[in-house]
Amino acid sequence: MKIIILGFGAVGQGVARVISMKKDYLKNKYELNPQIVAVCDRSGAAICETGLDEELLIQTKNDTGKVALYPDYGHPDIDSLQVLDEVEYDCLVEVTPTDIDDGEPARSHIMKSMEDGKDVVTSNKGPLALSFQDLADCARMNGVEFKFEASVGGAMPIINFAHETLAGCEIESIYGILNGTTNYILSRMANEGSSYEQTLKEAQEMGIAETNPYQDVEGIDAACKIVILANSVLNLPVTLKDVEVEGISKITSESIALAKKEGLLIKLIGEASPDALEVSPRLVRLGSPFAVEGTLNVATLKTDLADDVTVVGKGAGSVETASAILSDIVSIWKIRK
Amino acid sequence: MKIIILGFGAVGQGVARVISMKKDYLKNKYELNPQIVAVCDRSGAAICETGLDEELLIQTKNDTGKVALYPDYGHPDIDSLQVLDEVEYDCLVEVTPTDIDDGEPARSHIMKSMEDGKDVVTSNKGPLALSFQDLADCARMNGVEFKFEASVGGAMPIINFAHETLAGCEIESIYGILNGTTNYILSRMANEGSSYEQTLKEAQEMGIAETNPYQDVEGIDAACKIVILANSVLNLPVTLKDVEVEGISKITSESIALAKKEGLLIKLIGEASPDALEVSPRLVRLGSPFAVEGTLNVATLKTDLADDVTVVGKGAGSVETASAILSDIVSIWKIRK
Repeated sequence: MKIIILGFGAVGQGVARVISMKKDYLKNKYELNPQIVAVCDRSGAAICETGLDEELLIQTKNDTGKVALYPDYGHPDIDSLQVLDEVEYDCLVEVTPTDIDDGEPARSHIMKSMEDGKDVVTSNKGPLALSFQDLADCARMNGVEFKFEASVGGAMPIINFAHETLAGCEIESIYGILNGTTNYILSRMANEGSSYEQTLKEAQEMGIAETNPYQDVEGIDAACKIVILANSVLNLPVTLKDVEVEGISKITSESIALAKKEGLLIKLIGEASPDALEVSPRLVRLGSPFAVEGTLNVATLKTDLADDVTVVGKGAGSVETASAILSDIVSIWKIRK
Repeated sequence: MKIIILGFGAVGQGVARVISMKKDYLKNKYELNPQIVAVCDRSGAAICETGLDEELLIQTKNDTGKVALYPDYGHPDIDSLQVLDEVEYDCLVEVTPTDIDDGEPARSHIMKSMEDGKDVVTSNKGPLALSFQDLADCARMNGVEFKFEASVGGAMPIINFAHETLAGCEIESIYGILNGTTNYILSRMANEGSSYEQTLKEAQEMGIAETNPYQDVEGIDAACKIVILANSVLNLPVTLKDVEVEGISKITSESIALAKKEGLLIKLIGEASPDALEVSPRLVRLGSPFAVEGTLNVATLKTDLADDVTVVGKGAGSVETASAILSDIVSIWKIRK
């Protein structure tokens, strides 16, 4: 299986790393031999139709910041759309940075690949949150597979779980903690009685919150994920602008202490159902599956037959997110081989 | 798809109910038309090769206790092995009561069906805990599907989750609360400071614990599930006698109170890994995914790439357990159609 990776940040490098780590396993268990035939970043591309060396890719990027400096096979004068035109491949892994204004360049990459009859796996929330139905239609019309487990909750598998594992149930609604940064901040505020500002600052120093934490703390990141779940699991044709969003920046340590006295915690909860599309701080009970701490993500599927089923997992991390991409690649391979 | 149900207690009736409820859904979504062509209990069988009426089956059982009294199609003088011989069918649903001494009659039912080239779905822990490898070998040799999601944790999907959703990961170990009755008892003891004896008695009055609670409270039920997970997810060829088991009957309210002071809870935990096969009371931290209350089940899969992934769901219930059986039926149908 020939793979092109567009974007070579933490997730892209994670994909190269897990493919390198799992070569024997994939071959023995699934007869799958994934070859990375091209990788692009802003510097250009590394291209080798018989397969690039994953460790050398990662090392080149770490040492120089540029995949175009990959020895012998670097191409500084080529852009990603040209690569998709000129390189022979089976599956696109789209992991460029998320843009929630126009979803580019991921949207164009994904559409082009699908129109060219290629399968696509992505972790990119932008195009999914802005134009899910267009992308799903495009995949359908071109008869290609389009998978995006990694776009919601990193290593917390939820989309494939709903479609495959719960095949006999209908999912009525989804309710979850879909952002690890805010869960970390709220958990520490509850445990230490510290203020929002102080806790955010510490989370930034630890690399858990970003320098510009806006999309996380104001609930935008969680809202993108709610849109993806609403479309893919509940078949609701919604986009980011349909979500009512309130973040956590106004939560005080006093309100958290007050809740705690009653055996309750404040968490940033996303909800998707035919009646509600919302991200907001809500109370959850200690002892419920939602009382998880740290950067964990958790999502509950309300089903017609199995009652509530909940999944908990790491919401981020390079290798963790890449593992979800690899599971998508394996499931495409099972269909294609 | 022609289905025979052997055993018509809570789970068997649940299967009839969910098939009745989901007819349109299964037809529209999967082009699946499940027909129950025979049902057996101790009284004999109801048989109709064009399909029995699910609601009438349940009503007959509730009113008379005997499926053999099903109007026009009842057969009091036939046993289950004869039914498997004489009725044409595609898939056996084996849901007779669990026996952990010899696994019978389920073991013979399952083996016969597989030898006759039929697919099998079961919720029955007995034969799986005693002779998993024999059954798996028999399925392999006869080229049939053998699915048993409902045998572990009712509506908490864990086996198919490990195989399908986490296809890119290797599972290194499993750790879980696999028995709802003991979780209920320990949760109430922690919340109310009550004694083990008193709490068990109340749980029995509420129908949560059985009149003879031995297999639940002494950890045998959880040990059976650990054996099934060890075999099916970790490929460890173990049986019930390989599990070190300690139950909860010696847990005092004092020890629970002491743990609570340190932010800890006592839970009955099952663990399966290449190094350990064990059920015993252990300490878990408040705020961890294991601090769930009530009759919930929870299991964590330790993976090589995605770190810990946890599933929480209802461990029991007629329709909930039947939903897992239905998901297995759907996944067999997807392979066969």
